[in-house]
Amino acid sequence: MTRQVFIKELEVLHNDVIKMGSVLELSLNEMIVALQDMDVELAQKIIDRDDEIDLLEQQIEKECINIIAKQQPIASDLRKVTSIMKIITDIERIADHCADISEYLMQIHKQPTMKAPEHLSDMIQVMKKMVVDTIDSFVNQDADKAASVIAQDDIVDNYFTSISKELCDMMQKDIKVIPQCVAYIMIIKYIERMGDHSTNIAEWIQFIVTGKLVLS
Amino acid sequence: MTRQVFIKELEVLHNDVIKMGSVLELSLNEMIVALQDMDVELAQKIIDRDDEIDLLEQQIEKECINIIAKQQPIASDLRKVTSIMKIITDIERIADHCADISEYLMQIHKQPTMKAPEHLSDMIQVMKKMVVDTIDSFVNQDADKAASVIAQDDIVDNYFTSISKELCDMMQKDIKVIPQCVAYIMIIKYIERMGDHSTNIAEWIQFIVTGKLVLS
Repeated sequence: MTRQVFIKELEVLHNDVIKMGSVLELSLNEMIVALQDMDVELAQKIIDRDDEIDLLEQQIEKECINIIAKQQPIASDLRKVTSIMKIITDIERIADHCADISEYLMQIHKQPTMKAPEHLSDMIQVMKKMVVDTIDSFVNQDADKAASVIAQDDIVDNYFTSISKELCDMMQKDIKVIPQCVAYIMIIKYIERMGDHSTNIAEWIQFIVTGKLVLS
Repeated sequence: MTRQVFIKELEVLHNDVIKMGSVLELSLNEMIVALQDMDVELAQKIIDRDDEIDLLEQQIEKECINIIAKQQPIASDLRKVTSIMKIITDIERIADHCADISEYLMQIHKQPTMKAPEHLSDMIQVMKKMVVDTIDSFVNQDADKAASVIAQDDIVDNYFTSISKELCDMMQKDIKVIPQCVAYIMIIKYIERMGDHSTNIAEWIQFIVTGKLVLS
């Protein structure tokens, strides 16, 4: 194999990760709309799309293994390929959580109406920014942007704590909304996890760019 | 490098994963005891041990990257090294969840006494068997045992659903226990995730042994 073939294969790999990121962004945006509008049809569409992300993960996984086996990359190229193997696991998990949230949305929809927790949409906005910035920092191999993602994780964690308390209060005031509040607790837990997975990806991007591996 | 050096390095890697599995089993067993006895000191010990697992993950991660870079393994050896990179992420997450559960245990302990959900210990036993069997199937590279782990995941998922309902009932009957019940909901969610991570590991073990990658 020539060096040129290898560079081409790395490009294909890079673009396939970006493609996986685009599908994730689509699910993420639709999940936010579905949750806002309690749109069960859109929720179902997100759940159905999860297979597409799983297939992309498997395809990229195989591409990575093939490149390592056939091209025997070294140094920064090897770092990139092995990091991508990690990154796609986290992308797949974030997409999984879009589907998980969609399923809880369907449960909430079946039960008597209740107002969503006050700061839920704020929490979602911070998490969304983390995911989008993570994908951008992969596209541009931007370690500074990756660092900014990691810095936002505490904000999401704090929202989880405060919204949990808010939900406990809501349950204590009206026991009829307990099942929905439990569903909302699961939803904010998934949002918090999506922040964690973005942080993981950001750490791998820093490793690709700088060669230093710092896992939280 | 001779083939002998390579075989030695793969052995070291295999044994380091087993070592990481042993530390996980220790935390898992202690987490179960801590939860049963509401032992906050033991819970703190589990939280403190989490760093040890993180360091093992990073060390094994580096060993894998070094072996791929220097030894350029092919076929089943390459499959094993790349799979181990995935497996250690799941082992680390299961250990994380032992620490997460320990933190919620501390919250429950601070609040007025309530009985643990009826089937919690049954759920834990099934999850524990999944984790232990997963580690055993790695030690013996046993694809059949790995398949048996995957088959148990539905049992853990069903426990999550039934115990969630039980906790909703408990909250509706006595609003004073709402904060503890919320903590228990997080605990059973972590137990369910520990089952999922065991399934992931089992799938990677099947891939190592059979060469067929089937991700759920």
